[in-house]
Amino acid sequence: MATYAAPLKDIQLAMQIAGLKTVAALPGYEEATDDLIAAVLEEAGRLGAQELAPLNKDSDSFGVKLDNGAVTVHPALKDFYTQQYLEGGWNALPFSPDYGGQGLPWLVAAAVQEIWQSANMAFGLCPMLNQGAVDLLTEHGSDEQKALYLPKMISGEWTGTMNLTEPQAGSDLSQVKTRAVRDGDHYRITGTKIFITYGDHDLTDNIIHMVLARLPDAPEGVKGISLFIVPKVLVNADGSLGARNDVVCASLEHKLGIHASPTAVMSFGETDGAIGYLVGEENKGLAYMFTMMNNARLNVGLQGYAVAERATQHAVSYAKERIQSRPVVGAFSGGAPIINHPDVRRMLISMKAQVQAARLLTYTAIATLDVSIKAADAETASRAANRVALLTPLVKLWGTEIGVSVASEGVQVFGGMGFIEETGAAQFYRDARIAPIYEGTNGIQAADFVGRKVQKDKGAELLALVADLRAGLTGLDAGLTAALNAALDRVERTAAFITAAAPADAYAASVPFSRLAAMAVGGCLLLQAADAAKADSDPLYAQEKQVVAQYFIRHLLPQTAALEAEVLAGGDAVMALPVDAF
Amino acid sequence: MATYAAPLKDIQLAMQIAGLKTVAALPGYEEATDDLIAAVLEEAGRLGAQELAPLNKDSDSFGVKLDNGAVTVHPALKDFYTQQYLEGGWNALPFSPDYGGQGLPWLVAAAVQEIWQSANMAFGLCPMLNQGAVDLLTEHGSDEQKALYLPKMISGEWTGTMNLTEPQAGSDLSQVKTRAVRDGDHYRITGTKIFITYGDHDLTDNIIHMVLARLPDAPEGVKGISLFIVPKVLVNADGSLGARNDVVCASLEHKLGIHASPTAVMSFGETDGAIGYLVGEENKGLAYMFTMMNNARLNVGLQGYAVAERATQHAVSYAKERIQSRPVVGAFSGGAPIINHPDVRRMLISMKAQVQAARLLTYTAIATLDVSIKAADAETASRAANRVALLTPLVKLWGTEIGVSVASEGVQVFGGMGFIEETGAAQFYRDARIAPIYEGTNGIQAADFVGRKVQKDKGAELLALVADLRAGLTGLDAGLTAALNAALDRVERTAAFITAAAPADAYAASVPFSRLAAMAVGGCLLLQAADAAKADSDPLYAQEKQVVAQYFIRHLLPQTAALEAEVLAGGDAVMALPVDAF
Repeated sequence: MATYAAPLKDIQLAMQIAGLKTVAALPGYEEATDDLIAAVLEEAGRLGAQELAPLNKDSDSFGVKLDNGAVTVHPALKDFYTQQYLEGGWNALPFSPDYGGQGLPWLVAAAVQEIWQSANMAFGLCPMLNQGAVDLLTEHGSDEQKALYLPKMISGEWTGTMNLTEPQAGSDLSQVKTRAVRDGDHYRITGTKIFITYGDHDLTDNIIHMVLARLPDAPEGVKGISLFIVPKVLVNADGSLGARNDVVCASLEHKLGIHASPTAVMSFGETDGAIGYLVGEENKGLAYMFTMMNNARLNVGLQGYAVAERATQHAVSYAKERIQSRPVVGAFSGGAPIINHPDVRRMLISMKAQVQAARLLTYTAIATLDVSIKAADAETASRAANRVALLTPLVKLWGTEIGVSVASEGVQVFGGMGFIEETGAAQFYRDARIAPIYEGTNGIQAADFVGRKVQKDKGAELLALVADLRAGLTGLDAGLTAALNAALDRVERTAAFITAAAPADAYAASVPFSRLAAMAVGGCLLLQAADAAKADSDPLYAQEKQVVAQYFIRHLLPQTAALEAEVLAGGDAVMALPVDAF
Repeated sequence: MATYAAPLKDIQLAMQIAGLKTVAALPGYEEATDDLIAAVLEEAGRLGAQELAPLNKDSDSFGVKLDNGAVTVHPALKDFYTQQYLEGGWNALPFSPDYGGQGLPWLVAAAVQEIWQSANMAFGLCPMLNQGAVDLLTEHGSDEQKALYLPKMISGEWTGTMNLTEPQAGSDLSQVKTRAVRDGDHYRITGTKIFITYGDHDLTDNIIHMVLARLPDAPEGVKGISLFIVPKVLVNADGSLGARNDVVCASLEHKLGIHASPTAVMSFGETDGAIGYLVGEENKGLAYMFTMMNNARLNVGLQGYAVAERATQHAVSYAKERIQSRPVVGAFSGGAPIINHPDVRRMLISMKAQVQAARLLTYTAIATLDVSIKAADAETASRAANRVALLTPLVKLWGTEIGVSVASEGVQVFGGMGFIEETGAAQFYRDARIAPIYEGTNGIQAADFVGRKVQKDKGAELLALVADLRAGLTGLDAGLTAALNAALDRVERTAAFITAAAPADAYAASVPFSRLAAMAVGGCLLLQAADAAKADSDPLYAQEKQVVAQYFIRHLLPQTAALEAEVLAGGDAVMALPVDAF
């Protein structure tokens, strides 16, 4: 049940379309040869499919335990983490060689991460959050901090967490109340943080919490928030572990999904104040946090379609086995596997098409991220950075929406068996539901897209993207490119509307506008992938890519017309009713 | 948390649009006066909101227990069932006065049932399944059987169940293997049934199982299935309880949702063969079952939007309380309730609009059902029966899709808190997911719509519906009716396509075709409701109905254009790939 095979061919095709060649030619990525990448993916695929994926259901049923302030995860996950994940050096893949990282491109790390997320999303969260903490320290930590913490966080000997949310401060981090008071060369932190993913666990000896807090004399709002390192166990100057810090897991949430991952309420400084070390300068914590958060958003978008990939494989496998009724088409004398029923086939190809489109969009954003980091000339880097910034909310919003809708369709393919937890289809539906929420709800993504990414530059970067996409369609199937160009026209028209719109209109339309843009980009990339796959030695693979693109463009892309109408309808009907009428 | 108020004004408006006046004038429904209906709804609303709704979360956490073959539900649900639901005579509402029923219209029963389903879907299933069993016996039982079983099933002193599914026989009931062997004046039943809702429980002393089984000499397939009454406890001729029958609950499923309701594996005849009594004639069981199933499908559609109604109220209430960030519109100096953020407002009005549209569609179908049953002249009855048959798959498919998507949006409105089981938003998301699956998956509904409802009469009934809807738009807001007429044009064009289409094209397009038709009908009914609400004494209510219709028509109805394109794209891309390419 619920088997998984890493879709290595699809992953490699998507890397190719995203620009792997360009990425591998960047200074610093010389080691990312085709052979190395193939070997890395092959081994990650083996581990993910054979070792991690089979733990998905058991670790969900086991959940996490809190006993005397200490959290334990499923023992088999701990074994996997320590014996295979750490031993294999997987955690170090994308990080700086200066601190023990392997320095491979983020594009390669994303491909590998996709495999962990498909195999076991609740597990995959741990390295994902750690990556955020590593990014933060790499970017903003002092040399001393980096030397002390990064090597073990990069190896995975320790993990990192992100401590942002408080009960009154969710999307609105200006409301953070956790206090930090100067105490010699460090600070004392007091307060409660909620929704802390892997806030405590028994995978490692130490956990490095990155904590947002406010100094007593800090300005109000977002400009008065500072960022601190608060280790679970204090670290001596020589790197050895010292005393336990004053930070405990107060409780664990009972969640809809990702049961194998602890989501903790963390209590800082109940006794003496937890010892914390300032990162960078005082009052600049939120800005630091956002440098990390953009990458985390790409990862969550990836997580969304990665669960959908797993749900799709799972549904396909069931649909090939489950025999029920004589199909209206095909030469069947009696019952046949349900994949032969046109409506089941429709669900499956729709699932495949959406997953593949979201992967292409995500990898494209991450390859561009690599360029923005490593490009030799500043202008190329800066242009790439603008492009990643534009694509990030789309990756997050669309990938996670696809995660939920595809997982739900997966339940549907299973029929009654899908509603029974035993088959595993329901777990994907439960797990996928968090992704549109965390790392900034999809509403926040859409607001970011509208406000910071389109209105701010009057749509310039979005229009540049549209132009690039049009250029990429040259010479491809005329019927399909006509539909794609029409979708791109819709992006242009709605961008003009959004750029000129009053706030109520623009923000009421923000989600449909983001969906429209993401679908148009995804469709273009699918057709490019279909074209590239023509060269594949396996004619069935080439055909599959062609049909998937055709399906997406003919059956799903017309939704962009409805989305355009929704955007252009603006905010009138949305905002017309007084609150009391709800 | 998760409070619920029965939306009595919306319910009564929907009853009015659906044709309550016509229904109340039918022979046999003389008692259904406006005053009586108002009093019934008022009291159901009170019970649902104050007594049943507060049990929703606790009964979900408690689940159901199986101990020594006996199933127990949450004690508070049992108290509610015996002390309030039975005492109040609620179970008898729509059933024949000949056996103790109150003989009220199905439209009134549907309105009351909506309240139970919103309040506690897992509870609401019990009377819903019992209704199916009562319908079956009323229609097809012998006088003796009716006299023996119906009074207590109608009062609710006993409950009924539907035993159809077996592991190999889900959507395909031709595969039923449960055996029935003649044994004097009764039969001995042997076999295993799965997914039996309320297959065992402690609400009542007896449970009357309606069981599909096959005689040894029966023809193969659907024409060899017979229907039997298999009581949990045998009933003596005088109605008193006799010996325990050879039927036991072998196990309970661990489900994604509706945890408070037992879903049983039932084992018939493990010792001597369970004693069963034939209903009607041998080998006609499946036809009998279908007379019941159509009404059950209407009920499941209702259940879908009823959960969505609850999820909407729940999200609205949170959005009015939760303070986070300064909205881009409105005069707020700091954070404000999140309902003031345009994207949150968009989610809420979209939820409201879809729920209200689905309610109007459902009540319209059920009012027409009343006409089909009670109309004095046969032609009116027959025309109404055709209309109900056409609408039934739309009610089921669309209502349950809305159930899932609105419940999911409800989680989103709650943000991180939505993913925590404590708040209750996640429960609606879990509970709602079964409705697109049971009583015929939505794929089966769409196939029924295409094959039996549209292709069979070459679209005649659907086109008649479209004509009636157009007539109903006369004199209403010109801008909105233009959009609705355009949507109705799409229904006509796709109906023509479906009527002429080859099986692969028609069935690959069946779900989008059904969605398109349902949306168009729902939109027309919303505008009619908005028009009727102009006469309401509360201007805010009148405005709300106007804006909801406007929102639905301007923001959501454009989806019909995308659905038309999807239908007209047919089956090529859906069916092009060989199974091996999946």
